[in-house]
Amino acid sequence: MKRQQHFLDSFFNPASIAVVGASRNPLKISHNLLANLIKLQFPGRVYLINPGVPEIMGLKAYPNLQAVEDEIDLVICGVPATSALDVIKDCVEKRVKSVVVVAGGFSEAGQDGKKLQGEIARLLKENGIRAIGPNSLSPINSNYNLAIGFSPHEKLTQGGASFIFQSGLYEPRLNWLLLNFHLGINKLIDLGNKMDVNEVEALEYLGDDPDTKVIAMHLESIEGNGREFFQLLKEITRRKPVVVLKSGRTPAAAKAASSHTGVIAKGSDAIFDSALRQAGAIRAQTIEEFFDFAKAFECFTPLKLNGNRIVIAAYPGGEGVITTDACQLHGLSLADVSPETYDKVQTIAPPWTVNPNPFDLGVSTQFNGPRRTYRVLMEAMTEDENVDCLAIEIELSAMESLDGIFEPFLMAREKKKLLTVWPMENTRQDMTSIEWLESHKIPVYPTGERAVKSLAAVHRYCTNNPQ
Amino acid sequence: MKRQQHFLDSFFNPASIAVVGASRNPLKISHNLLANLIKLQFPGRVYLINPGVPEIMGLKAYPNLQAVEDEIDLVICGVPATSALDVIKDCVEKRVKSVVVVAGGFSEAGQDGKKLQGEIARLLKENGIRAIGPNSLSPINSNYNLAIGFSPHEKLTQGGASFIFQSGLYEPRLNWLLLNFHLGINKLIDLGNKMDVNEVEALEYLGDDPDTKVIAMHLESIEGNGREFFQLLKEITRRKPVVVLKSGRTPAAAKAASSHTGVIAKGSDAIFDSALRQAGAIRAQTIEEFFDFAKAFECFTPLKLNGNRIVIAAYPGGEGVITTDACQLHGLSLADVSPETYDKVQTIAPPWTVNPNPFDLGVSTQFNGPRRTYRVLMEAMTEDENVDCLAIEIELSAMESLDGIFEPFLMAREKKKLLTVWPMENTRQDMTSIEWLESHKIPVYPTGERAVKSLAAVHRYCTNNPQ
Repeated sequence: MKRQQHFLDSFFNPASIAVVGASRNPLKISHNLLANLIKLQFPGRVYLINPGVPEIMGLKAYPNLQAVEDEIDLVICGVPATSALDVIKDCVEKRVKSVVVVAGGFSEAGQDGKKLQGEIARLLKENGIRAIGPNSLSPINSNYNLAIGFSPHEKLTQGGASFIFQSGLYEPRLNWLLLNFHLGINKLIDLGNKMDVNEVEALEYLGDDPDTKVIAMHLESIEGNGREFFQLLKEITRRKPVVVLKSGRTPAAAKAASSHTGVIAKGSDAIFDSALRQAGAIRAQTIEEFFDFAKAFECFTPLKLNGNRIVIAAYPGGEGVITTDACQLHGLSLADVSPETYDKVQTIAPPWTVNPNPFDLGVSTQFNGPRRTYRVLMEAMTEDENVDCLAIEIELSAMESLDGIFEPFLMAREKKKLLTVWPMENTRQDMTSIEWLESHKIPVYPTGERAVKSLAAVHRYCTNNPQ
Repeated sequence: MKRQQHFLDSFFNPASIAVVGASRNPLKISHNLLANLIKLQFPGRVYLINPGVPEIMGLKAYPNLQAVEDEIDLVICGVPATSALDVIKDCVEKRVKSVVVVAGGFSEAGQDGKKLQGEIARLLKENGIRAIGPNSLSPINSNYNLAIGFSPHEKLTQGGASFIFQSGLYEPRLNWLLLNFHLGINKLIDLGNKMDVNEVEALEYLGDDPDTKVIAMHLESIEGNGREFFQLLKEITRRKPVVVLKSGRTPAAAKAASSHTGVIAKGSDAIFDSALRQAGAIRAQTIEEFFDFAKAFECFTPLKLNGNRIVIAAYPGGEGVITTDACQLHGLSLADVSPETYDKVQTIAPPWTVNPNPFDLGVSTQFNGPRRTYRVLMEAMTEDENVDCLAIEIELSAMESLDGIFEPFLMAREKKKLLTVWPMENTRQDMTSIEWLESHKIPVYPTGERAVKSLAAVHRYCTNNPQ
């Protein structure tokens, strides 16, 4: 049965796009509104609207939307606020169905801005045009080589994590997201000032989207009384995890939120928190947690977690202790390994008997080298039915070659264990191994604490939403 | 008045060192026990003890300690556990005063190891020799180009932060510490199995050390009932900040701690936490917090903080809101800027009136460029008597040159405001600006949340310990 068409399809899968207001100058950020589509080889039809130039990047420029003979699914309105109304009038005339309004300077910008946003909203509504923004950079659909934004993109990391942002958070952070977190992005929508499309519609769309394995959602405010939102959230979290970062939690921040999007946040944070929990969503407390959790879910969904019994292996003993603390604090428990496993790890022990969990990689590699240590450890732990997940510290500055050294880590996936790792030294030479691991859906974190906290979020979700 | 000599002086400021057991092979980690002293140009006299080789790195090898005619202040015992007793016997004969025992394989390694450690401890005590370890890599004294460790060092970042580690945490993390945190290290001591020197003596020494501005201490256990420790801590925190990372908090982790150092942790974490608070210390909850807080104190001590009124400026509005939440959650409050400041920042506003705090750098730089925006913002905010501290997001991927762009940030120091920054994009090209800022004692954090949480720790300390 074909899934019914959702109006947001024209934003994520447009057959044709018109970009209005992309600069010809590659040093201006608005240049990238068009350049990204060309560089990513967006497969749909692209039209450039710019009355002042003959062409940009080899693409012929049209003076206005009406000059394009083709049907236009999506208009990217990249002109300043003061010219936006004219573009919207052209959209009406051209019978466009969907528009993204990029510029700021509307409801967040005093009485004039509010009035302008109101006028545009009315015009759009009267003509049945749906709009994202204003004050929005999006959408992204990595499966379709589609990315609307000011940051330059040469390549999108494909994956199953879809994002909803309410307002200017993701775009300036996008490289950080892609490089430091290596997140496999599927779709991304930035709601901006929420003149029209809101978080309920975005959530509804991504909830039904078969390519979205996890939804990560940044929110500053919720439309209306929130009943519809939490009802929908509850229904979706039964099927797929939803990570929520809610800001504007404190009165000062709520006031700040309203001043930059013109949307007023209501209700206390404690009420929101409890409603979120009842709806089965996972709340992230910080930006780092938001991306950490999203990465874990992206790597591990669809989820098969039998329990919360974890094995920890760390280089310095002290780090094993700290990571053990984090497990206990966040709801994981140290696995009590089988006698067979116990015997197997003694074959890579120093001349004395060692504790199998947390396992001290430092002494073991001193006597056996990292290659043999990793292999024996992984074989023993992934075979063990008393072990559900593993958090392993890895050494990336070993003097011997790292070639193939992490191959045994793939056993964890084969044996349906959740494996996460963190590097001993976070130096800037480590990226090859980290990228290899993450391309095999083994998420890498900067510390053992963040690694196990993310695993614990997965465990919490699985416990609340048994599949 | 000259400060009385503390016995730990012979560890941190030895006139002569003998290294026993450094490998000739540069690929072996024990090679660095000697190589670091040579590369760092340690100014004291260095003797190499190795009966199997004629020289290492041009330094003549002696067959044993007795063959050295000079007096030896500090012996680094780098041989495996099984040979350590012989080296200690040589130390006795040579009338050495201080020894560091590097190897593991003692009280953490079964009955044989426990027995061996006991024998060594007795022999040392009978002969009045003080010892750090076993299972210890240290000391470091950056003012004296002294670094004992397995990690290779070409250069030490000098500063005022001194560290106490209980067991294998810092050494494998050292590059991370130096590179990702750019911490200005003064001294470092790793207590290992605490056969002799313990946390009370280390704390006492660093408490009186005029070069140590902040003490950062990792603990797994406390000797005895802790009365002496907390008494001393209370006395020291009146003069300088002490950041404590206590692990082995949960039962499983306490057991793990005992298995890797042979030292048993006692007492509940809640009691420890309350005692720590009463003693005026700052507790870090995670490894990242530990280093984040240490960096803030290192940059800002001696502390002059008039209040907790902060200004936030961020690129995407959303990030300003999130950082505002973090301020409120951790005990800072948004500054209510003066009318003069309000007027000044309107000169870098877009065509509409803007909220001065949190300040939206995104729209401002769009209209004024980052150079002018930073300058006007810094002039306005650092002049304002209603502002005590600032947390500013910085843009490092600007298309224009970054040359001198952060010069106005130095005004914050001149005006006695605490300034911390975080980069919008954490890409790997950013290091030059980050190093410049940190060399001027402006600490850089990965997120606004971590930046303000660290500032809040400074504020908490200042409130509890008015200078």
